[in-house]
Formats: sequence, structure tokens, C-alpha cells
Amino acid sequence: MRFGVNYTPSGDWFFSWLDFSPERVARDLDRIAELGVDHVRIFPLWPVIQPNRSLIRSAGIDDVVTVVDLARSAGLDVNVDALQGHLSSFDFVPSWLQTWHRRNLFTDEQVVTSTERYVHALTTAVAGRDNLMGVTVGNEVNQFAHDPHPDPYRIHETEGDTWLRRMIAAIRAGLRDGGAAPSVLATLAQYDAAWYDDAQPFGPRQAAEHGDATVVHSWVFNGAAAVHGPLGAGSVRHAEYLLTLAAAWSPDPARPSWLQEVGAPNNVLAVEQEPEFVERTLRHAMDVGELLGVTWWCSHDVPRTLADFPVFEHSLGLLDETGRLKPSGRRFAEVVADLRARRPAPRPASTAVVLDDIDATGSPVPGHRASCAPGGSFAGTWLRVAEETGRGPQVVLRSRYTAEHLHLRGITETVDLPA
Amino acid sequence: MRFGVNYTPSGDWFFSWLDFSPERVARDLDRIAELGVDHVRIFPLWPVIQPNRSLIRSAGIDDVVTVVDLARSAGLDVNVDALQGHLSSFDFVPSWLQTWHRRNLFTDEQVVTSTERYVHALTTAVAGRDNLMGVTVGNEVNQFAHDPHPDPYRIHETEGDTWLRRMIAAIRAGLRDGGAAPSVLATLAQYDAAWYDDAQPFGPRQAAEHGDATVVHSWVFNGAAAVHGPLGAGSVRHAEYLLTLAAAWSPDPARPSWLQEVGAPNNVLAVEQEPEFVERTLRHAMDVGELLGVTWWCSHDVPRTLADFPVFEHSLGLLDETGRLKPSGRRFAEVVADLRARRPAPRPASTAVVLDDIDATGSPVPGHRASCAPGGSFAGTWLRVAEETGRGPQVVLRSRYTAEHLHLRGITETVDLPA
Repeated sequence: MRFGVNYTPSGDWFFSWLDFSPERVARDLDRIAELGVDHVRIFPLWPVIQPNRSLIRSAGIDDVVTVVDLARSAGLDVNVDALQGHLSSFDFVPSWLQTWHRRNLFTDEQVVTSTERYVHALTTAVAGRDNLMGVTVGNEVNQFAHDPHPDPYRIHETEGDTWLRRMIAAIRAGLRDGGAAPSVLATLAQYDAAWYDDAQPFGPRQAAEHGDATVVHSWVFNGAAAVHGPLGAGSVRHAEYLLTLAAAWSPDPARPSWLQEVGAPNNVLAVEQEPEFVERTLRHAMDVGELLGVTWWCSHDVPRTLADFPVFEHSLGLLDETGRLKPSGRRFAEVVADLRARRPAPRPASTAVVLDDIDATGSPVPGHRASCAPGGSFAGTWLRVAEETGRGPQVVLRSRYTAEHLHLRGITETVDLPA
Repeated sequence: MRFGVNYTPSGDWFFSWLDFSPERVARDLDRIAELGVDHVRIFPLWPVIQPNRSLIRSAGIDDVVTVVDLARSAGLDVNVDALQGHLSSFDFVPSWLQTWHRRNLFTDEQVVTSTERYVHALTTAVAGRDNLMGVTVGNEVNQFAHDPHPDPYRIHETEGDTWLRRMIAAIRAGLRDGGAAPSVLATLAQYDAAWYDDAQPFGPRQAAEHGDATVVHSWVFNGAAAVHGPLGAGSVRHAEYLLTLAAAWSPDPARPSWLQEVGAPNNVLAVEQEPEFVERTLRHAMDVGELLGVTWWCSHDVPRTLADFPVFEHSLGLLDETGRLKPSGRRFAEVVADLRARRPAPRPASTAVVLDDIDATGSPVPGHRASCAPGGSFAGTWLRVAEETGRGPQVVLRSRYTAEHLHLRGITETVDLPA
């Protein structure tokens, strides 16, 4: 089980790539290592490294490699996300994709070829580092593919598949060309609309079928905290719940999942509730089978001197903006230490709730993703079973419901939704 | 009379701000100085210096100051443009103005206040340099205010005035706070739709009333070359023509004008026509009164290795991408040397064509700007008089037509358009 944090640099946040300071990064990583984590996830800014479609700045790539090496010195592995893209409400889109040069990020052949080149170059550069944990296509790139993004590059689901195949292939080629170990992960990261919004072209199937692990990002400001209260079961089990959904959609019961982002946002949680939220979220997630790791969002608070962030971004850190441990960080470190010392083997529940993705005739059920969203009928049933049995149930898709499938996943009892 | 060039850095064009190399800039500026020019116009990238609304990177400012100092070593003065903004088809817009953070660039109070801070900080930093020629609000910022920009921040004309007043005031405050000489110019730069498109919120009045000089940018791909042929009078006199329009709109006959951009674009000109275009354009412009200078676009060709530029951008340089003198550059240098040695005093024509901006009842005439565009009725008359008399006529607005006004401007004969 891996425990890590998403690295939000102290000082000037990700704008610090423009004033790259190895000393500052080393200091940040030392503070992070003191949390007892084994890895960080890092976020280059795409337009800074590839400011022109045909220009990949070697100095920009070098800075990323330097962070990986500094992390090694701090005893940390690193996951590199390539396409940022989207970070904490800000979109970093290169000028060659904007206004007069606007073309579809996902389907324009020149754009996709050039994006592959960037992903490949970045991956190749870090591939040989023995502390490389993995490379992710980019942070929640699916946000750009549909509403409510204010300026989406609209695509069909099959176009999303094609794009993801190419990006994962670019990562794998880079890993191979750079001499990475076979264990290094190629992944994609989606925000939770993939699981909850039937209109999204990037959905659960994409999350579960592309790359080496199914990534989930859990944010209780998505309605969970509003419906269930900030420390209600539907909030502190939200990450666990997403992981059980991830397992349901996986074509392979052995496919690992990764809770790559989860945080305690102060727009729905009081500061004094954070430590308990941290602990309960972590412990609930541990019950899920095939979980490879948890990566908390985030390391450092965004300084309040920076403008226009959603206000909760200034308090998501386990460390404050100067690197001092916060109460949520202390609890995180304690729970991680405890789980490292004596985590029981995960025992996925033998009970599963059935998600009706198809009906009796085999036709897709409209709105089945929406039923999974916080407050939805499926989510409500899952949560009721979780609270009645004291364990988050597994999830089984109606379309995969066979005796063999249930057996493989250790499911001995299934619960249907009330008609 | 000032002669200069717009400095397009060799190598990685303006992306080179991300890999700032004083050595490379010094080499470029030495090549530029060999053209016999006395100044360059330089273009920081706004999102690189102000990546967050509240973050103005001191290292970014320092790089701009370094360019100014390197220019001094090369014997060159410098005009600094602040808001880029728009450059050669690419828009560089900070993430804090995009997508989720989109707000009106010109009217949102937080945005305008923060833009003022940027303009003021940049200006203050360079103000004390004795080779500072001026500061321009930004390159053709008016492009963002209306169609055909694909994503305009729409405003009314009065909002444009308010914004310009604030930006010019920010420059003047920066010049004062940084100890600039009184001769340093505060200017705004507009692309020619201001003069030719009646719907633009930034128009001739804004060009002629804000700042210390009226700036014109002359590009014959705007229709002039198509209507008149690349070396036709309407093309090689296009810059001169814009300057006479600028003088017409000026509330003060003594207000200087500045041909801040003019170039020989290969989408409408053959390479072998460039030297003649350069020479005729320069010589025609010299006849205009109160012209303070000509700044050619541009110094260095955009390397062909960079993608997605309009194809003519790769050949606009007086120098090629390695800094070698091109035939157009040689002719430019020769003509500049000749004009420096023996330019006759400009003698604005005593004939003026009357532009009917108002009708007999004093009401604004719809479409009077369009009549000024290449191929328009006013432009045609101006050109006919120019060719008949051998000199570009002055322009007088109907709304300013008084005996005193004509006298002040040395106009003894006026030509009305055919009814």
C-alpha cells in the first residue's frame, strides 16, 4: 500500500515552474517526507514546457527531472502528470490551442500528434529514474471534454477512447525508450463526473479499461457533504465508494485502483473536522481490495497572497504555506504510520449492490451514472448497506452479473435497488 | 526622425522569455544595430510575468530590464510593450482570465486594477534607463475588443476610453515613479480595424486622443495589396495614408504620429518585391508631418521549425532566423542611411481630402470608417489625389473643417468625394 501526497509547491504554487528553485523544492520535499509518505505526484505546466506546438523546452523537461531526483534524495517516489491542463480551477492551455488557433484538443490530428510528442518526451526523460512510480496522462483532462467546462472540446465517447489509447501508448513508449522498470504505471486521471454524469464522453469504462490502474479522485464538495453532512457516512465513505465503483467497472478483478486525489475541502468541512475526516476517509478506503495507494491532496496550502483560487484551496494542505505541519497533517501522518504498522489484509465485502447499467432486455439504462452520484438512488442503497453491515459493499454491474464473476470477486450476496 | 525595428528574438521567438539568454539577446541586438537603427520595440509575454493576478514575477521584470540594458550596450533605445496579449496570430492570455476565470479584460474592476499594477510595475522597472524611448500599453490590444476575434471581450466605446485612460495613467505613474525623462512616450497601439471598421469600440478617436503620440500599424494584407497589387500605389502608400488619417483625427495638429509597425508580408508580396516595397514605403512615409519615427516589423524571421504561424511570419525579418542580412534588410539599411543623411524637411501636402465623418446636419455618417478601408470610396479618392499630385494629400475631418483648422495645418485646397 502506497501513501503519498500531491505536491503543491510552497511559495508560488505551480507558477514556481517559472522560477524553478531546486533548493526550495528540496525543502518542500523534506517536509513532505516527514509525513511518512513514500511518494509525491507532481504537475508540470504544459504551456511552460511546450509553448509552441513544435517546441518542447529541454530546460522545462530538465526541471521536472530535477524534481524527480530531489524526491529520490528525500526518499520519495514520484508520479508525473503530463497535461496540465487543469489545476485547482485554473486551465493552462497553450496559445497554440487558443482563440485563433483553437482546435479540438482530443481529435485534431496535428494537436494529438504534438501532444503525444510532449507526453513521450516528458516520460522518456524521467523513465530511467528508479524512483519513478508512474506517469499519468494529465490531471483530470476529462474536464475539458464536456460541460460544465465553459469552453469544452466536445467529443464522442469513441473519440475519447482513441485519444486515451494514444496517450497511454505515448507514455508506454516513453517508459520503454527511457528504460523504466516494468512496474512503473501508465495511468489516466478523471474527475468524478466520469462516474456520475451520463453525458460525459470520458466515463467509467474509460477509467477502468485504459492504463494500468483505475484512478479515482474523491471530492466531497461534489454534493456528498451537502447530502450527508461533512462527517456523514456518505462523505467519509465517499472515496471508498468511488473505489468500489471503480472495481465494478474493471474488466479484470485483479486490476488495481488508486485513490489518487482525496482532500478535506473547507467549503464544506470545518477546519476542526478535518483530522477526523482524514482518518475516517483513510481507514474506510483500506477495506477496498486491489487498492494500490492513496495520494492526499495536497502537500502545501496555496498562499493567500495568490488571487482567484476557490477559497478552500488555501487550506487543503497537510502543511501550511510555509511547510509547518497542520492538525490534518498530523492526523494523516499518524494514521498512515498506523496503517503501515498494522493494516489488516483488506477484505472486500461479500455483499454487493447491483448497478443496473442494462435492463432486462440488455439495453443500456439511461441515467445509471446519475444514480451513482451523491444523493442518487444507487448511491443511497450502497450507503444504506454500508451502514447496516458496517462495511462498504462491493458493486457489481448488471451487465457482468454471472456466477463466475461473483465468485471471482468473492461476492456471495447481492442487493438490488428497490423497484 | 527615429528608425527602429520590432525585435523578434532569433531562435525561439518570444517563447525565449522562458529560457532567457542575455548572450543570445546581445547577439541579436548587435545584428539589429548594424541595420543603422536607433531603437527596438520589445514584447514581454504578459502571462509569463503575471501568471497569477496577484503575482508579478520579479525575475520576469528583471529580464525585461536586462534587455533594455543590453540594448543600451548596442547603442539602441527601447520601447517596451506591456500587454502581450496578441503577437503574430497567437494570444497570450493568463489563466486567470481564461475559461473558469474568464472576466472582461477591459471592464472587470479586479482585472483592470491588476492589469494597471502590471503595467505600472513593468514601467517603473525600466523608467530609469536613459535609453528608454517609451512604453506602449500593449500590442494591438484592441484586437481583443471586437470581432473578428474569435473570443472578444465586448465593450462599448466609452468603456474603451476609460480603460485606455487608466492604462496610460499607469504608464505615466510608472515613468514618474521610476524617474523617467519627460520625453519618454506613453502610447497605445491599435491594429488598423480601428481606422477601417465602424463597429470597433477602439477607433480613430482613441488612437488620436490617448497617450503622447498616435500610433499606426500598417499591414497591406488587409486588402490594400489585393486591391492595388503588392507594389501598387495603394500598397506602398498605405503606411503614409494611415499616417494622414492619424493626423486628421488628432485634436492637436502638433501631435506626433508613429509608424510603429510596417512590414512586407509574403502572403501578398513576392520575395523579390520586398526591397522595393521597403524603400517606397519608407520614402512615402517621410512626407508626412509630425512623424516621430518608423519601426519596421521585424528584426528576425520566425524559424520555420516553429509551428502554426501564418506562413508569412517566417519571412518578415530584415534578418533571417540566424541574424544574416536579407535583401529587404539591406535595402532598409540603405534607405535609412540615406534618409538620415539627407531627408528633406517633410512638407505635408497643401491639398486635403475631406472625410465626411458628419453630414450636413452634424449627425455622424454611418460607414465613414469603412469608406477609409482599402478599396473604400474615401481611400480611393485619397489615392487618386496622391497619384495626380505626386504627394499623399492630407485628410481633414468634416467635423473639424474650419478656416482656422485648415490654416493651422497648411491646407489651402480641399477635395470632396464625388457625391
